[in-house]
Order: sequence, then C-alpha cells, then structure tokens
Amino acid sequence: MSNPVEEGKRLAAYRAVDEYIKPEHKVIGIGSGSTVVYVVQRILERPELKHLVYIPTSFQSKLLIIEGGLTLGSVEQYPVIDVTIDGADEVDSQLNAIKGGGACQFQEKVVAEAAKKFVIVADYRKKSKILGTQWLKGVPIEVVPLTYQSVINSLLNKLSLQPQEVALRMAVNKAGPVVTDNGNFVIDAHFGPIEDPASLLKEIKLLTGVYEVGLFCNMAEVAFFGEADGSVDVLKA
Amino acid sequence: MSNPVEEGKRLAAYRAVDEYIKPEHKVIGIGSGSTVVYVVQRILERPELKHLVYIPTSFQSKLLIIEGGLTLGSVEQYPVIDVTIDGADEVDSQLNAIKGGGACQFQEKVVAEAAKKFVIVADYRKKSKILGTQWLKGVPIEVVPLTYQSVINSLLNKLSLQPQEVALRMAVNKAGPVVTDNGNFVIDAHFGPIEDPASLLKEIKLLTGVYEVGLFCNMAEVAFFGEADGSVDVLKA
Repeated sequence: MSNPVEEGKRLAAYRAVDEYIKPEHKVIGIGSGSTVVYVVQRILERPELKHLVYIPTSFQSKLLIIEGGLTLGSVEQYPVIDVTIDGADEVDSQLNAIKGGGACQFQEKVVAEAAKKFVIVADYRKKSKILGTQWLKGVPIEVVPLTYQSVINSLLNKLSLQPQEVALRMAVNKAGPVVTDNGNFVIDAHFGPIEDPASLLKEIKLLTGVYEVGLFCNMAEVAFFGEADGSVDVLKA
Repeated sequence: MSNPVEEGKRLAAYRAVDEYIKPEHKVIGIGSGSTVVYVVQRILERPELKHLVYIPTSFQSKLLIIEGGLTLGSVEQYPVIDVTIDGADEVDSQLNAIKGGGACQFQEKVVAEAAKKFVIVADYRKKSKILGTQWLKGVPIEVVPLTYQSVINSLLNKLSLQPQEVALRMAVNKAGPVVTDNGNFVIDAHFGPIEDPASLLKEIKLLTGVYEVGLFCNMAEVAFFGEADGSVDVLKA
C-alpha cells in the first residue's frame, strides 16, 4: 500500500484495535467510514476478538460486521459498550471532532455515548488545532425533512451565517438531497474556525428539527492519527 | 352542550378564531387535539375565511382541514404563517405550555414557530400558575426509538428523576408503545412543579435522541380559556 492516506488510515485503525480492544471485553462499537474498514479488517485478523458482540453505527457498518462473520448487536440490547472505535472528519487538539461526512453522525453519537471508551482513528489530514480549519465541507447537521428550510433560516438569522455558507447536501446517485439512514436530510454549515465547539453544538441542537449535529465534544478518550511517514501519532484527552 | 369542559373548549376556540383570524390573512396554522376541532368548526361557519391556506400539525389536523373542504398547505411551501391556533395540556401564567398529550408536539412546534402569532385555546382545567401542577401525565418527550432507553437513563442520571417518574407511553389499540406521526416513541417524564420551563426544555432537548420536547416556552402571544361559567378568560403574554 503506497498511498500515504490509505496507509495512515490502516496504521491508525490497527494500532487502536491492538491497544484498545481486549479479548476480555464483551461489546464493541463499530463506527462508519473508510477508516473503519481497517478496524474491522484488523479485528478479523485477531481470532481472539471474534467472540465479542459488535454494535454498528450505520448500514455500512452493519454490513462490515455481517460480512466479517462477527456477532451483530444493538445498543438497545447492549446499552453499555466497552469500547467504540470510529473515524472523524477533523479532530482538534482537545479531541473534539467534526463527524458526518458520511451522514451517520446520529447513530455514531449514540454508540459513542454508550461506550466506556470512545476511540478516534484517522489519517494525518484530519488533525487540526481548531475545528473548521482542515475539514472545509462544513459541520453536518441532520434535520427532519419538514424543517430543512426553517433550520437554514435559523442558521442565517440566529447563528449569523451567510446564505453561501449553508447548503442542503445533494445526492449523487439519486435526484434531490441525500437521505440519511434515518430518513432525514443533511445541511452542511460553514462556521469558519470553531473556537468553542461545545457551545456551537448546543446552539444548533436546540433548533427545532435538528436531529443531530456532527460535532462530538468532550467524548473521545484518545485519537490515533496515521502519519505520512508511517508512524502513528497518539493524542490523549 | 351542557358539558362545561366541552363548552369551555368551544367558547375558547370560537373566540380565538373571531379575534385572531382575519379575511385579509393568507396562511393559518391548525393545531391538534380536541379543542382544535372547534377551531375548524368555527372557521367553517365563517365563509370569508374559506379562501385561506391552512397548515396542519398532525394527521388528525390534516383530516380536519381536508374534510372541511379547506385548502391544505405545507410549512415548506408557506414558511411564514399569519396565525397558528392550537390547544395545550397546561398553560402557566407566562403562557408557557405543556403540549404533547396527543403526541403531536413536533409538528405543532414547527408550525407555531413559523407563525407571526401563536394563539392557545383551552378549557379552564388547563390553566395553572406553574407547569406540572395541573397536567399530571408528565412532560411528553418524543424520542428516536433506538434511544428511548438511553434517554430514560439520562433523565434518571442527569436530570435526577426517579424510575417511577419516567415511562415509555404505551399504545391502547396496538401492541407496544405509541408510535408518533413521525415514527418515534414518547416518554412521559414527571418533574413535579416546573419553576423554569425554558431551562428544562434546553436540558432535555440537548440529550441525544430527543426529537422534540412538549414544552413551549415564550411562544404564545395570547391564551383563551373557556370557563365553567360560560365566560372566556383571555391571558396575554
């Protein structure tokens, strides 16, 4: 594998699995996205981890678990998860993250909150000092379809965004907007550098019709970044 | 009509329609519940109001509009509503309200927020000094089904409720829980007298999986209460 980004994802995922998932655990949360593919790949390489129950965070993640022949569980049946490993679109130095490029942030947040330890894996491009400076596609906001316009209006009027800073995410392989695994829409909102992600998260979540916000604040215990030079940078909260 | 409660509902609804809906308006929001039946009844008695567009807040409300032969609209097409008239389960002296006995609080809040004027109609039993002292079935919280248990856990652990103060609302004419018009569940949470409904609303809405809370704070401009003696008490914000 000569692509440094892919190699970075793989290195971070392998290291996180090896350091954080233990045979004595019972329930593991599996995130979504391209880096998580390597998380499951590494789990499958370690037979002593195959008896654990795995909780998905999306349809993609559910398929990874099923196709790997692992035991699929639900957070309703296993409300306490030992460790959840997930990717992120951007992670700041306090381990706050932007997530939702894949539109799975709702289930990802549910499964992350249920976990005793939440572990982020990513390649080096996702590391930043301040959220909103590396991931330039905006903060993903999942909204109930009926309210997408009123939420956009609130982002403009209450949160002082400009019209060009807010967009309904459009689909590529279907007409019209992206529809999430939960039947909702996604608004991508550009706030520029986000100095206080926890308070921005609150402001957005309080808008009527907001299902979940792709800001994960004070949740991760550790983040593994696969670097271009083949090393792994480990950041702890 | 000799039942004072029904007569109270009718009086409040008629008075609100007569004082607040004008022929020169364009778009009217129609709430949900038993009192709103009288709102539509009064509208139908006034031919000069029949050309307006009516926005529903539930399936029940949509049927009232359709069966009345009125023009049905959507809040997506008409984001600005002139007046929304809706019932409530309890209204305090600042016109904060508990709503959601009928499990329609999400669409009701969307349509109330879109209105220039939000008008509450209710019988005398719904009037109180402090929320949580008249309506004893709890604050209705609409939740995404996957998260009903984690939201209950948060209500116990973060909001300090006791297990007997929190219940998943069960259906009568189907097995299992009530499912809302949006495909979600409802938790009824008993907080006792609610001194600061606006801050309670925020605390609950911020929990992951909470779709909407049946607390409407600082939204109503006026409330009409039909009294047992045949009068109508008018409270303004």
